[in-house]
Amino acid sequence: MNRKVEKSRFFFEQDMQETVGEVSTLKPKPWGPDVKLDVVGKPVTRFDGYDKVSGTATYTFDIKLPRMVYARTLRSPHPHAKIRAINAKAAWEVPGVLDIISSDNTKSIPWYRNTSMIFDSHLRFEGDEVACVAAETLKSCEEALRLIQVEYEILPFVVTAGDALKKDAPKLYDSGNVTWGKPETYKRGDIKQGRMESEELVEDTFSTSVAIHNATEPHGSVVNWEGDKLTVWDSTQAVFRVRDSIAAALKIPDSHVRVIKKYMGGAFGSKLSAGKYTVMAALLARRIGRPVKIILDRREQNLAVGNRPDSVQRLTAGAKKDGTLTFLTHDATGAGGAYPSSAGCSWPARTMYRCANMKASDTTVYINAGPGRAYRAPGHVQGTFALESLMDELAEKIGMDPLTFRMKNLADTDQVFKLPYTTKLLKESYEAGAKEIGWQKRNRTPGSGVGPVKRGTGMASQIWWGGGGPPAYATLKLNRDGSAHVIAGTQDLGTGTYTIMAQVAAEVLDIPMDRIAVTLGDTGTCPYCGGSGGSTTAASVTPAVRDAAERMLTKLRSAASAILEVSETDLNYEKGTFTVKTDGKKKADIGTIMQKMREQALVTTGARNANPEGFAINTFGAQFADVEVDTYTGSIRVKRVVAAHDIGRVLNRKLLENQFHGGIIQGLGFALMESRVIDPNTGKVLTTDFHDYKVPTMMNIPEIKVIIVSEGDTRISAVGAKGIGEPAMIPTAAAIANAVYNAIGVRLRSLPMTPDKVLNALEAAGRKS
Amino acid sequence: MNRKVEKSRFFFEQDMQETVGEVSTLKPKPWGPDVKLDVVGKPVTRFDGYDKVSGTATYTFDIKLPRMVYARTLRSPHPHAKIRAINAKAAWEVPGVLDIISSDNTKSIPWYRNTSMIFDSHLRFEGDEVACVAAETLKSCEEALRLIQVEYEILPFVVTAGDALKKDAPKLYDSGNVTWGKPETYKRGDIKQGRMESEELVEDTFSTSVAIHNATEPHGSVVNWEGDKLTVWDSTQAVFRVRDSIAAALKIPDSHVRVIKKYMGGAFGSKLSAGKYTVMAALLARRIGRPVKIILDRREQNLAVGNRPDSVQRLTAGAKKDGTLTFLTHDATGAGGAYPSSAGCSWPARTMYRCANMKASDTTVYINAGPGRAYRAPGHVQGTFALESLMDELAEKIGMDPLTFRMKNLADTDQVFKLPYTTKLLKESYEAGAKEIGWQKRNRTPGSGVGPVKRGTGMASQIWWGGGGPPAYATLKLNRDGSAHVIAGTQDLGTGTYTIMAQVAAEVLDIPMDRIAVTLGDTGTCPYCGGSGGSTTAASVTPAVRDAAERMLTKLRSAASAILEVSETDLNYEKGTFTVKTDGKKKADIGTIMQKMREQALVTTGARNANPEGFAINTFGAQFADVEVDTYTGSIRVKRVVAAHDIGRVLNRKLLENQFHGGIIQGLGFALMESRVIDPNTGKVLTTDFHDYKVPTMMNIPEIKVIIVSEGDTRISAVGAKGIGEPAMIPTAAAIANAVYNAIGVRLRSLPMTPDKVLNALEAAGRKS
Repeated sequence: MNRKVEKSRFFFEQDMQETVGEVSTLKPKPWGPDVKLDVVGKPVTRFDGYDKVSGTATYTFDIKLPRMVYARTLRSPHPHAKIRAINAKAAWEVPGVLDIISSDNTKSIPWYRNTSMIFDSHLRFEGDEVACVAAETLKSCEEALRLIQVEYEILPFVVTAGDALKKDAPKLYDSGNVTWGKPETYKRGDIKQGRMESEELVEDTFSTSVAIHNATEPHGSVVNWEGDKLTVWDSTQAVFRVRDSIAAALKIPDSHVRVIKKYMGGAFGSKLSAGKYTVMAALLARRIGRPVKIILDRREQNLAVGNRPDSVQRLTAGAKKDGTLTFLTHDATGAGGAYPSSAGCSWPARTMYRCANMKASDTTVYINAGPGRAYRAPGHVQGTFALESLMDELAEKIGMDPLTFRMKNLADTDQVFKLPYTTKLLKESYEAGAKEIGWQKRNRTPGSGVGPVKRGTGMASQIWWGGGGPPAYATLKLNRDGSAHVIAGTQDLGTGTYTIMAQVAAEVLDIPMDRIAVTLGDTGTCPYCGGSGGSTTAASVTPAVRDAAERMLTKLRSAASAILEVSETDLNYEKGTFTVKTDGKKKADIGTIMQKMREQALVTTGARNANPEGFAINTFGAQFADVEVDTYTGSIRVKRVVAAHDIGRVLNRKLLENQFHGGIIQGLGFALMESRVIDPNTGKVLTTDFHDYKVPTMMNIPEIKVIIVSEGDTRISAVGAKGIGEPAMIPTAAAIANAVYNAIGVRLRSLPMTPDKVLNALEAAGRKS
Repeated sequence: MNRKVEKSRFFFEQDMQETVGEVSTLKPKPWGPDVKLDVVGKPVTRFDGYDKVSGTATYTFDIKLPRMVYARTLRSPHPHAKIRAINAKAAWEVPGVLDIISSDNTKSIPWYRNTSMIFDSHLRFEGDEVACVAAETLKSCEEALRLIQVEYEILPFVVTAGDALKKDAPKLYDSGNVTWGKPETYKRGDIKQGRMESEELVEDTFSTSVAIHNATEPHGSVVNWEGDKLTVWDSTQAVFRVRDSIAAALKIPDSHVRVIKKYMGGAFGSKLSAGKYTVMAALLARRIGRPVKIILDRREQNLAVGNRPDSVQRLTAGAKKDGTLTFLTHDATGAGGAYPSSAGCSWPARTMYRCANMKASDTTVYINAGPGRAYRAPGHVQGTFALESLMDELAEKIGMDPLTFRMKNLADTDQVFKLPYTTKLLKESYEAGAKEIGWQKRNRTPGSGVGPVKRGTGMASQIWWGGGGPPAYATLKLNRDGSAHVIAGTQDLGTGTYTIMAQVAAEVLDIPMDRIAVTLGDTGTCPYCGGSGGSTTAASVTPAVRDAAERMLTKLRSAASAILEVSETDLNYEKGTFTVKTDGKKKADIGTIMQKMREQALVTTGARNANPEGFAINTFGAQFADVEVDTYTGSIRVKRVVAAHDIGRVLNRKLLENQFHGGIIQGLGFALMESRVIDPNTGKVLTTDFHDYKVPTMMNIPEIKVIIVSEGDTRISAVGAKGIGEPAMIPTAAAIANAVYNAIGVRLRSLPMTPDKVLNALEAAGRKS
């Protein structure tokens, strides 16, 4: 594996850095197809269900501390400017105002990988932080913000990647507008050779819009100093990462920052790193000696806390008439906003299909807009839309069914790393999905339906990293009454982590689910786990829980053997009780064993094993969509989506479906409506709320059918989960786009496929009804 | 060891049950006199110092949750009554009132070891719980309490142990007024034989008053349900015990209750078990679906949450002229209040001195007053006062210096369990204390001083259990920046547990104290530790911390060896860095090692080893007091106290002195002023605040000198601490009483030695000035 490739694999380093490690502790037999499980895999109702529907669940927003005050941020109204002077005199006069910080009175603290700082006087997007006010009430904060007078030097701005790459474009940084200075590139084989071998060629350009995470719960923190130690309640996907960032910013030891997150109303990648707001709140809290709550509003969500960068993607591919793919190129450019981030759209193309000749590049460009951030399968969602559209085009060109074409080019090894997969059930996914959607009934000739409302069916494939990895630890505490407590430093983003961890503990210890509690997301008290990103949480953490539970069982078995005076192999264990095989009356339950051991609570800690060497670990799948396109109005209605995936072991059927529903709905929004719009004349964002930034509602949601073709992946861990958060969303938009083509016979290469684009495309193709 | 003895040893079962266990994990060499320590033992400033003086420390009282409401308790105004009817109609009308619970609408929940229940209709003391109100404000609560109409059937009451033992006394329970039905007794040898061998005899009766813990921070909880799980912030000495009690009361799994305690303003034994108020708050919170805060006031502290039972103690002893103690009897009776508790005053007498013939009994009696509870060295403080007074009397009778007499009868083995001590430096304590106080300068003839203000010097001995024990666990988390986090389920009562745990970790890992954070007191996230009582915390928990730290060092050393490619024995470790012995340039620090291990945080868990078999583990010591008695006013002024003790290893010299100061001041209060007074005519408590219940103030505090004669006790653990919380207080009152006798030549056998008692005694002895 050459270095460049290794580096590029970690295109969103923050998400993936925890997934590599060397700890290996797990001994028990992996849960393969021969093992019958009682709790794991079942549609157990989520642990936090009651809390959430009853309103008793506490989110960061709900934290209220004695003497707590509020903070709000003054943000740049200009896409590009420098601060000449700040006059906060009038703001200080507002009753209730306690403190105002800005570049005027705050030492520089590096931020965004040192490309900026907290209160940078160079403002690079509409929403960049100018000042922060603390006051007794939010109302006082708002009034003070209005009264802060800032003299700006307004600079020329650039808000599209295309413009940013022009020679005379305004520069965001002295080093130029290309992030990292140059594209990230990849190459294997010989494109010329591949081109020569091909009998049909396709080349096309695809584009996608900027999508905003817009999680239900906004970003925010509550901070409290006790002496030189800081506690931060934060809505975050990565408590330890926030801890380390805040400690570094404040120049205090990591151990002096405690980050707590209990419940979360979504994140989708936008809460993987610490926010400037947390540092500002901590600075204010230290200055005024009181706890500070800072919660961002919906406008700030839409401006400043991340997005899925847009893309312009040029792809070319060739095939022989027999369907053999001979070459593939994928060159993508995306606008990562004002602060570092990268897109990585070409990753699926590099390894989805068996193809000897491949070339790819990803260029990320700075523009004067909010920072791009990881967003549910970053790059892959955009790249899959382009790649899978192109594959359909190529299949059509050689007159082959698109599914048959994909089967023909199935890769049996990872094309980049040249490694076999631990498991790969993509073919099975294709077959199961095709059967369920009724693939054979689709339009043989695209656009051939009668009447103004055209029906069509399309599909697309999915690949994503999988299996998680170390380091991830879990502590298990067993009580005398046979109840247990699982503790880990991971996070539940609303995905069900609390529940699946309890299921694994319940499975191994054979105790009822309702006797298990789970504590997560507290750097002060929980053993280390990585950030919850990259679909790694379940796959990384549940094996650690199993390890802890198996260790507990070992401890209990050994004690039971001593107490019952028989060898361990002469004991049966069931439902918290050891029984002597030869004498069913001789038994000892957990309470008895612990009483004899004189222990009030037994504690074990388990760890995630290292991943196996010499294998690629990926999830695979395919989604199929039935759509209706109204050729009068241009509106697209998705009727049904079938998702057939290989994601390793199912841990909880109900939560799994939740994830798929969420991913598919988000994919549908990306395909049909979501788009951040910036006014090119002013550089200002026009879509800063849910009125202007459209997301799917109940009215848009199709029937969804989830089929899992996999069982536990016994190579990767003793639990065998590979991850589902991102796979669920990856192929949705591509499948819908292919279905739309199948319906109307005109290909839309730009997302979202809004009615105006549909009508324009129909008109251009002379197909307007 | 016969069963009776074994049982009696655990006279305050709740405190001691965690100190027995079988876990053995500690390998490293104990810190003996040959080991030089850099941090442990030093007068490190307490971790929580800043928080406390700045007011940022959060106590239970400071917890404020969204939508939180307040609760207050209606308590019986009668010492003994039954509830005939409750009419809360008017109370319900008070604006802001949300709920009222009482025996009318609450299912019975057993409490006080099943002798009572939550909302018992049989009220056994003034302060027994009748109803509990939840309202939006405390004011509404108070108003509602005033409007609840209760029809009481007033019963005859009894408020002294003497009265309670009379045949026709009102009974608190059908089974009679003696707790457990009979006295707890002990006997060895032959008293008759001892009496025959004796050449001088003494027999006397001593009495002590009821003392109230009166911790600065009152008892209280904040409770919050999230679904079927309950979080309790509680001012408690035992988070796990509260968890288990509340779970049992509410019939939910232990793991569904999370108990958190961060800081505490004292407890002294009164917060070792769960309070009814917590259950009532939990019931209210469940009914109204909002968090509830219930904080008791000072009056409730004085009425209802525990006390040191009073005592009437009859002792006899005999000796030969050469000073040999020939027999000793100690029969004590104490009024344990309305709910179970026992006194155990005779324990010091059973084993303090070498004495073949010994007989003892402890009778605990129910009276219509607040429950007796463990209070800093329960029984021992009262018993030591009586025993050590009597020893002085006996020494005087045979014409021997009281210190010489004690040396003569030093026990080299535990007299009850017939076991050698791990260490016993009582003789050394006597010698060091005598030298410091100037024992030779005391009045040869008691009361022989000239002038109205008489000076005197006295001393007394101390014995207490020591060394703590398992189960106690500690988790250590080491970060890449070399900072560390210690986590354990123990509690810091204000004693300095946070600090000493950090010291032990800093010592082993050789990292600065200010890079260590400590989290304690959270059953949701911390590994198990027992309650903080019986002076067991430091001795139990610090070896677990050392174990965790040594395991961490082992982990690091092994990784360093692999990274630097030398054997582990070729490595030096200092200040977070491993250096190759033969090549000082080859080194790896914690950050480098963890980076190479691809670990963000390393975690280890350590456990307290089992105590050695075949040994008794005790602390020993002696205190010496200089007093002045004003024979005009009867007032006693303690001028100086010298405390010389064998308490194993000193962990922090400054905190150690804090503990001794606190214990000695509390002992002084017990000796001179503290006394709960009940009006015998009404059965009502007259001392319910700090105006009527006198405690020492700065004006009363003597010069205090602390001498520690011990180093680490290498037999008990790798840390070698034995405990200091209770030893500090045990001999103070006795030493003051003996000093008073030495000053005025008249013995006061009743505590507190208030001016009236002094003047009456002087008058009775014909010594009134």
